[in-house]
Amino acid sequence: MKFSPLLNELIQALTCLPGVGNKSAQRMAFHLLERNRKGAIDLSNMLHNAMEHIHHCKRCRTFTEDELCEICRHPEREASGLLCIVESPQDVLAIEQTLSYKGQYFVLMGHLSPIDGVGPEEIGLNELETRFSAGGIDEVILATNPTVEGEATAHYIAQLCAAHNVEASRIAHGVPVGGELEYIDGNTLTHAFSGRRKL
Amino acid sequence: MKFSPLLNELIQALTCLPGVGNKSAQRMAFHLLERNRKGAIDLSNMLHNAMEHIHHCKRCRTFTEDELCEICRHPEREASGLLCIVESPQDVLAIEQTLSYKGQYFVLMGHLSPIDGVGPEEIGLNELETRFSAGGIDEVILATNPTVEGEATAHYIAQLCAAHNVEASRIAHGVPVGGELEYIDGNTLTHAFSGRRKL
Repeated sequence: MKFSPLLNELIQALTCLPGVGNKSAQRMAFHLLERNRKGAIDLSNMLHNAMEHIHHCKRCRTFTEDELCEICRHPEREASGLLCIVESPQDVLAIEQTLSYKGQYFVLMGHLSPIDGVGPEEIGLNELETRFSAGGIDEVILATNPTVEGEATAHYIAQLCAAHNVEASRIAHGVPVGGELEYIDGNTLTHAFSGRRKL
Repeated sequence: MKFSPLLNELIQALTCLPGVGNKSAQRMAFHLLERNRKGAIDLSNMLHNAMEHIHHCKRCRTFTEDELCEICRHPEREASGLLCIVESPQDVLAIEQTLSYKGQYFVLMGHLSPIDGVGPEEIGLNELETRFSAGGIDEVILATNPTVEGEATAHYIAQLCAAHNVEASRIAHGVPVGGELEYIDGNTLTHAFSGRRKL
């Protein structure tokens, strides 16, 4: 015997959330039923709404419910001629929070990973090429993650940039501000040395 | 700047789940949007359905979409004259999985906790008394958790049973099967000794 059929189905449905197994789903279901039915109804409506209306921005591929996202609609950002390429919308948020970058973005929604069947087309590189051809971009800043896949993706896009005569740069990798040298891994230190700047 | 308004609302709505903060909610929202829109729609429907149809069993107070839950509808269980009192529907599941108990249940949906405003009425003890008065119960097995509140609740219900001339018993507390004595806490060991049985 298990819980009532409907309750089992709810628990099953909750396991579609990442990092939520059967036990957590049970806990969530009981919590919602017992203490927060209104929250659950709100969540239900919001999930429905979001899945129906949120899609990719036509221009930068981030998630938005409009045709173009807020950043792509900004005329000053378009005039900057800067295009920052990141892996995910969360990366856009992180960069925006620094308040130091005033250009546009292109969100790959992943990275090249041939083993998982993610090729250039899956991360929107044909759209990126169309944008290069349309002109208006002076410099591409490659801000993919400093992982093996992220580096490979950056390298691939740098070649695309070269083919379209667009300048490409990679964000600096080195010792994080506030970090202590003795705790930094060798690979990062090597990057910090090779990327040193004249004072 | 943050994500698009609708996406922010979805992230906010997801934090109604227990143990889900802002970062996890972000991860969940992006996972659903990017990889499992069908799962999200199913979850939305299921949440709506469950919140609409699941209520407390009229008899044992567990969660069910029917008037009486499956266990309460069982004629053999009613004939047994046994009533096991537990704190939550999960406890019912745990006991059912042992396949060794064939009586009915009464689910308190919590425990006495005056400091949180949970008194006898909130855990359905007036309904329990009505059941005692109606007769048909020979023995009450108190299976609340062996915590301070659980013990207090068991003690309170034992007094109710005495008032209604219903026999009450408490499940045994002692060394778990497969446990090693040297790792068992002193309190449990004391219980194990005081609850020893003649061989």
